[in-house]
Amino acid sequence: MLKHVNSGVKMSGKYCRFCSRPAAVRIRYSGLLVCKNHFMEYFEKRVLRTIRKYKMIQEGDKVLLGVSGGKDSIVLLHILADFQNVLKFEVIPLFIDLGIQLGNYSRISCKVVEENCKKLGLDVNIVKIQDEYGLSIDKIFTKKLKRPICSVCGLIKRYVLNRKALEFSADKVATGHNLNDEATVLLQNIVNTNIDLLSKFGPVQPALKGLLVGRIKPFFETYEDEISLYANFKSLDYVDIACPYSEDALSLKLKTIITKLEDIRPGSALTMVRGFYKKIKPLLQGAQEEKINKCKICKMPTSTEICSFCRLKQRIAKQILSTTS
Amino acid sequence: MLKHVNSGVKMSGKYCRFCSRPAAVRIRYSGLLVCKNHFMEYFEKRVLRTIRKYKMIQEGDKVLLGVSGGKDSIVLLHILADFQNVLKFEVIPLFIDLGIQLGNYSRISCKVVEENCKKLGLDVNIVKIQDEYGLSIDKIFTKKLKRPICSVCGLIKRYVLNRKALEFSADKVATGHNLNDEATVLLQNIVNTNIDLLSKFGPVQPALKGLLVGRIKPFFETYEDEISLYANFKSLDYVDIACPYSEDALSLKLKTIITKLEDIRPGSALTMVRGFYKKIKPLLQGAQEEKINKCKICKMPTSTEICSFCRLKQRIAKQILSTTS
Repeated sequence: MLKHVNSGVKMSGKYCRFCSRPAAVRIRYSGLLVCKNHFMEYFEKRVLRTIRKYKMIQEGDKVLLGVSGGKDSIVLLHILADFQNVLKFEVIPLFIDLGIQLGNYSRISCKVVEENCKKLGLDVNIVKIQDEYGLSIDKIFTKKLKRPICSVCGLIKRYVLNRKALEFSADKVATGHNLNDEATVLLQNIVNTNIDLLSKFGPVQPALKGLLVGRIKPFFETYEDEISLYANFKSLDYVDIACPYSEDALSLKLKTIITKLEDIRPGSALTMVRGFYKKIKPLLQGAQEEKINKCKICKMPTSTEICSFCRLKQRIAKQILSTTS
Repeated sequence: MLKHVNSGVKMSGKYCRFCSRPAAVRIRYSGLLVCKNHFMEYFEKRVLRTIRKYKMIQEGDKVLLGVSGGKDSIVLLHILADFQNVLKFEVIPLFIDLGIQLGNYSRISCKVVEENCKKLGLDVNIVKIQDEYGLSIDKIFTKKLKRPICSVCGLIKRYVLNRKALEFSADKVATGHNLNDEATVLLQNIVNTNIDLLSKFGPVQPALKGLLVGRIKPFFETYEDEISLYANFKSLDYVDIACPYSEDALSLKLKTIITKLEDIRPGSALTMVRGFYKKIKPLLQGAQEEKINKCKICKMPTSTEICSFCRLKQRIAKQILSTTS
């Protein structure tokens, strides 16, 4: 986690580790002091190292990147666009319009994504879930499903990303999940003893030919506040307001636990996420093996007969029918 | 975790689940409302169920109970004294005088333990580590060992409890570790990815004939605030001040994380501790098997040649010699 070195105060001897400029940032878990430029260099190198360490991208890959407009995916968009030449791959940005009219959220987000892509000379692909699947988060929210709205939204995004990746013949799907997100999910799954999800925890989700495109998380080992700082140093334009539906999300509350843990023992999220993935997850393998089928309706992957996305659509359709009858 | 039902306010319909008395307590994770008497009954039954569930005590057992004078061990002392007839075993209280003169801590604690034992008609055994091993926490603290003082103290208590249990031919050693303690240790070992300690996590530590007496934690599934409330309802006398050395203890800071987690999602500590023990720990078995030897100096169990307790004594003796030479 980061702590700004207070630049308003005269700091004797607080200089960048790599040059003679005054330090602008102190990386708390390592104690490293760096200037603005060297922080950006450090940040980019760190992400590149994560991509290489977990063999996330291969030469010639087409990587579909889900860009929501939030800081994580916007920073990832810029970083991956930069890395295209070094790693020899192609990034394809995809914006999913979830149909959130509340606070003009989806419209604002879409505009931000389009502008960032334009600056980078990238074509953005837009999927309006209202047009393609007859759904919108606004509509789903009124249906009062038992499942929390954030969980429904996550399901839709995962489904659409995979479906579009298959349509575009992409080799990978990349998302902006950061270290704090991963530590939160890990904690949540430990609290719930969800062995199935724990055994799938990691920076890379394997592909399943013709059904599931492999997923990668280049920010798996990058703290959220480092991403914010990078976005600010680079003056990137991103959507700085939380989704209007996320207010009461359990995951957001649990995230504050990770922040507190990090305050008490800097570096905790990193050692926990990395250590669990490296040493504990392999021991959970084979705890639960599940068979993957093709959904009878949409042909997308599912462990049952009909996938969760189609079941969601059915449930909503049923509710609409019962209301109008 | 518990929340008192405010008894000063007229509460329409807030009655005990089991009788017609007004509710005095609401068990937050289950929503159960109970009066003072039924809370105590509920509490005792719960501990008895834990003892039976994990087969902690067998008929005829001699159980050595480490009593520090704090609320956990004082409540456990009273509960085990009560259970002696039902479960047909004998409880032997042991107080370890750690030689903490700061704030008169050891003296006050000893007096509290003696008085509680007297009330219960039990003989208390007192081990003064200064007399038996030439050590005291006050003395060790000044030596500035690399290991935190709480960790050194824990080592000494574990050692003395086991050694005395062997001397008394006790069948079990019982300690007052509660659910919050266990959840904290679990979180700490997950953050540190300490597979060795994680694979030993649980309410019962097995015995090793002639070397290690089996350890039991009857409060493994009991929240700390339930123990406090029980102590207050029963008007038990216990040491209510924290050890003067514990102020900066990492474990105390981590414990606040568990409290926060419980605030966000009541019942989290219970599902986490129970679920980890039941479903994840068995998968970690065999991850690291260690050979247990007899310490060359004191003949107590160790995984190396000389046990940690004797090494601690050697280190302190060496420091004393180097200071006086």
